[in-house]
Amino acid sequence: MKHNYLNNIPLDEAKRIFYNHLKEAGFGCRTETVNVGDACGRIIRNAAYAHICSPHYNASAMDGIAVDSRITFGASEKTPVTLKPGEYTVVDTGDPLPDRCDAVIMVEDLIEAGEDKLQIISAVYPWQNVRQVGEDICMGDMIAPSGTELTPSLCGALLAGGITEIEVIKKPLVGIIPTGDEIVAPTSSPRKGDIIEFNSTVFKGMLEGFNADSKVYPITPDKKELIKTAVETALSECDIVLISAGSSAGRDDYTSEIISSLGTVLVHGIAIKPGKPAVLGEAKNKPVIGIPGYPVSAIVIMDEIASDIVSMYYGRERTKGETVKAVLSKKIVSSLKYTEYIRVSLGRIGGKISASPLARGAGVITSFTKADGVLLVSQDCEGIEAGEEVEIRLNRPLSEIENTLIITGSHDPLIDEAADFLAKKGEEFRICSTHVGSMGAIYAVRDGLAHMGGIHLLDTQTGEYNKSYIEKYIPSGSAVAVRGVGRVQGLMVKKGNPLGIKEFADIKNARYVNRQRGAGTRILCDYLLEKSGISPDEINGYSNEEFTHTAVAALIAAGNADAGLGIYSAAKMYDLDFIPVCNEIYEFLIDKEYLDNPMVQAFLEVLYSDEFKSRLNEMGGYTEG
Amino acid sequence: MKHNYLNNIPLDEAKRIFYNHLKEAGFGCRTETVNVGDACGRIIRNAAYAHICSPHYNASAMDGIAVDSRITFGASEKTPVTLKPGEYTVVDTGDPLPDRCDAVIMVEDLIEAGEDKLQIISAVYPWQNVRQVGEDICMGDMIAPSGTELTPSLCGALLAGGITEIEVIKKPLVGIIPTGDEIVAPTSSPRKGDIIEFNSTVFKGMLEGFNADSKVYPITPDKKELIKTAVETALSECDIVLISAGSSAGRDDYTSEIISSLGTVLVHGIAIKPGKPAVLGEAKNKPVIGIPGYPVSAIVIMDEIASDIVSMYYGRERTKGETVKAVLSKKIVSSLKYTEYIRVSLGRIGGKISASPLARGAGVITSFTKADGVLLVSQDCEGIEAGEEVEIRLNRPLSEIENTLIITGSHDPLIDEAADFLAKKGEEFRICSTHVGSMGAIYAVRDGLAHMGGIHLLDTQTGEYNKSYIEKYIPSGSAVAVRGVGRVQGLMVKKGNPLGIKEFADIKNARYVNRQRGAGTRILCDYLLEKSGISPDEINGYSNEEFTHTAVAALIAAGNADAGLGIYSAAKMYDLDFIPVCNEIYEFLIDKEYLDNPMVQAFLEVLYSDEFKSRLNEMGGYTEG
Repeated sequence: MKHNYLNNIPLDEAKRIFYNHLKEAGFGCRTETVNVGDACGRIIRNAAYAHICSPHYNASAMDGIAVDSRITFGASEKTPVTLKPGEYTVVDTGDPLPDRCDAVIMVEDLIEAGEDKLQIISAVYPWQNVRQVGEDICMGDMIAPSGTELTPSLCGALLAGGITEIEVIKKPLVGIIPTGDEIVAPTSSPRKGDIIEFNSTVFKGMLEGFNADSKVYPITPDKKELIKTAVETALSECDIVLISAGSSAGRDDYTSEIISSLGTVLVHGIAIKPGKPAVLGEAKNKPVIGIPGYPVSAIVIMDEIASDIVSMYYGRERTKGETVKAVLSKKIVSSLKYTEYIRVSLGRIGGKISASPLARGAGVITSFTKADGVLLVSQDCEGIEAGEEVEIRLNRPLSEIENTLIITGSHDPLIDEAADFLAKKGEEFRICSTHVGSMGAIYAVRDGLAHMGGIHLLDTQTGEYNKSYIEKYIPSGSAVAVRGVGRVQGLMVKKGNPLGIKEFADIKNARYVNRQRGAGTRILCDYLLEKSGISPDEINGYSNEEFTHTAVAALIAAGNADAGLGIYSAAKMYDLDFIPVCNEIYEFLIDKEYLDNPMVQAFLEVLYSDEFKSRLNEMGGYTEG
Repeated sequence: MKHNYLNNIPLDEAKRIFYNHLKEAGFGCRTETVNVGDACGRIIRNAAYAHICSPHYNASAMDGIAVDSRITFGASEKTPVTLKPGEYTVVDTGDPLPDRCDAVIMVEDLIEAGEDKLQIISAVYPWQNVRQVGEDICMGDMIAPSGTELTPSLCGALLAGGITEIEVIKKPLVGIIPTGDEIVAPTSSPRKGDIIEFNSTVFKGMLEGFNADSKVYPITPDKKELIKTAVETALSECDIVLISAGSSAGRDDYTSEIISSLGTVLVHGIAIKPGKPAVLGEAKNKPVIGIPGYPVSAIVIMDEIASDIVSMYYGRERTKGETVKAVLSKKIVSSLKYTEYIRVSLGRIGGKISASPLARGAGVITSFTKADGVLLVSQDCEGIEAGEEVEIRLNRPLSEIENTLIITGSHDPLIDEAADFLAKKGEEFRICSTHVGSMGAIYAVRDGLAHMGGIHLLDTQTGEYNKSYIEKYIPSGSAVAVRGVGRVQGLMVKKGNPLGIKEFADIKNARYVNRQRGAGTRILCDYLLEKSGISPDEINGYSNEEFTHTAVAALIAAGNADAGLGIYSAAKMYDLDFIPVCNEIYEFLIDKEYLDNPMVQAFLEVLYSDEFKSRLNEMGGYTEG
């Protein structure tokens, strides 16, 4: 088993080396000439000067009559002036002013005086109600400087200035070559070991956002010569080439070798996490980038490097996105070996915006779908404390983030369902729901990090739910639990219950999958173990922790575990057998300050609606809360 | 001459009437099913649930060997464990975990021990270095609720969740019918009276921004039956129909009548300025909007009404754009008859953002190309004082506005040329240049409304330029004039000088076109008149004021005037004769605080460069400043 090590070049250094080399290689844009009518959104190569004036003739600005202003002088209510046919010309808005006329009298100001004569009671001054030549645009004026992105109104101004065609920068074409023996085209029924190729779709969408076109080449297996041929084809057809996967140093990772054989490898291995195993190279004076296969690593390299390369093509600096100052909700530890690229969800609770780090694994694409922004932790930083102010690069407009109901706490699919109901009702706010367990809900609501959160915390002394926990952890009484739902908790086991599990104590003989510490279901598990006199050590898989009911169900369905505690709807979804253990009360803990918040109100309104109850019935395992 | 009056329905009321009617008529979206690979940017109709888990099998997270974790227990430096062939399987990242294996040991942690045996010195725990089934996405989990706009990473998540096709909202198709006898397709050589049809290009671009497709129908002349037929065709092919021009109440304005004959006119005349003569109607359960012909009025109606209609099609509320608080730089007077829609340029000078109102005419498309934002002055407001804080709807990202060098003052085309040089050099800041004359520059710089401004103010006592004005109007000494250029001022007259003008005093016998009060060239004109003993009253056209040298030149070229004072480059551009009058000094007044500002520095660097001097030579009439 061969193992090569990658370099670990600091991000800025890697960019400098790569970009300087590309500049020297003459990498840059191509142009094309297009109709101005189709040029909206395009970037013009050179300054655009008006060919003609706009208006290009003296035009009537009103419906009325055109006159020589001198014949109107002296007109007043006492001394009206009468205009005979021949002394005026009827004009509509936009009509050219007849020769010898220099003003227009509005139709509203005319009094009919018989025999086509017209009377006026006030004079007009020269050029009144006339759009003189060049009022808007003068021939020779610069309408836009080089490099301007054409807006709709700029396209209008160009046409008004007599420009019908314009040289614009051709959108760069980016070739994407997905590689890998195990990679398959998108399917809903992949075989074991098949990896669904979705990175090229993500790249295509991101490139569109960078203002680049893309061409996705067929999936190429891990054969050096085949990949090399694909890269050569892409180099002959495209401005930029991306090779997806195979950029690390494993036995099937040929990217670096292939780029070397066709051109130059500048960097192999960047001190960024995720994203380390990237290759930055050049061939035929074009950038060739080896992108890591893990989706999150890939997105980071697209965002950090490919985005810059497209900007460089256009001759621009990197487009700086909007940023926002936020308070970090949770301590981050970071290695001095890397710049870290941490996805965060953002929320405005009260006066401040808080940033909560999301899952950091490189394989977790959903950490990007949920990410409202990115926190870059520089290489020389060992970590950031909770409560510190950090700068976040925004992934969505701040207005959307401000307009978000933050629900943090125990997982229940009903929260997603309620979000969907609200969206269908046309509510414009967004729900950001994270699963940190019931205790997580208590801390988040107490610390002002969430508007509300689901809780189902059994007081093993009293048998009551939630009340004693809230009293203990939020003694100020600043939060209150409102009615949610009743739920059946039980053991999920494989269909047909092959191990013959009858009650909770039987998990001693099974491979168990647990929930994370702080989860209401974990507390229930610990309570049931204690009641049965079983020590956690006796449970095989006690330390195998998952964050959601569906994750537990998925592992049982996959055979990674035999049993796990969860709610009925999750078991049903995965076609598992379900052995009920208890009925519990799932409530929503809400900061009192937000009880009247319109988003909270809208959420509860849906929750308590009859339509929603029908949906819960379909899902199964719920009772009135 | 028939004249009908329009209604004047308050904007909100007009919207309410129109939108309620459309809702009752069942106006809304159509859907289509597309490949997820092509769905980026589209809006999903229903919630999307994962069909499969991701990963859908237990996958190795590393290159290394897969093992049953139990055989590694107890491994340490002192008690290494040796793995024999058969006890491990070599795996690459992404490979499925073989049966009976539950962990992966990284290749880096393996010691070769001969005969294909491998030694390890630390144990792995169950599921270590394994991406368990559902680590990222669990089957049945909601990936996105109804109405979500698909981002690149969401498309990736859908594909990872086994979703290959998805129902999305079909982009609405908007039919655009340009009307008018005088309207011609874009051309660089229109005949007198021809109006270049550019509104449909502006609409198309705006609609793209609203996320709608458009179809532009051929230009239809002002014949009722022809327009009616075009509307019927558009109604049968499109979701929304826009009739461009003909929406007022003049003799050729048929829009309202035609909509009435096909359906219902809800509103004809809205209390908004510009934009009043709009028609809001419905036919075949689809919105039909009569858009005013003046481009600025048209853009306002597109922005206020058409944008809402597209949102309504998608079942969303109006997308609220970003807004910013700014300080109004100049008093605005507004009528109680209208909501006013005032285009402003924005700039950050020092700590605050200031908003300067742009030209208010309905025909001035350039007031939109220059507009950084829009100030809506509500109907019940008579005006806003300078210095008041106002809320501005942004037309461009705030970051772009923050990154703008504001040059306010005397007009010279060299400022546009310098902006172009800077853009070509790849400088990322924008220049916002407005023409308010030399005195305007002094006030703007003094009041912190501009970084710098061009001035050429002749002290008629001393013959010196600028110095005494700065001392008088900025006694604090907070601003300083830096070297600009020398310019030749002279009289521009028609080619061949038909009136035989020899010196400035000869304008007594000509139709003159003047510059606005406060312009350096106006001060020069007044000085020259005084010196010649001529009273302004004796000058025909003294009150005909223009804001730029090119505007003066354009009017002389068009025959609206015989003579005007201006710089050589403007005369040259319009092929006019030029009678030099004096050499003057054009300098840049700069707030001392911004002398070191990198944007100001970059501007001056260009101004003093040899390449720029060559450009000035080409333009003509400049000397070293």
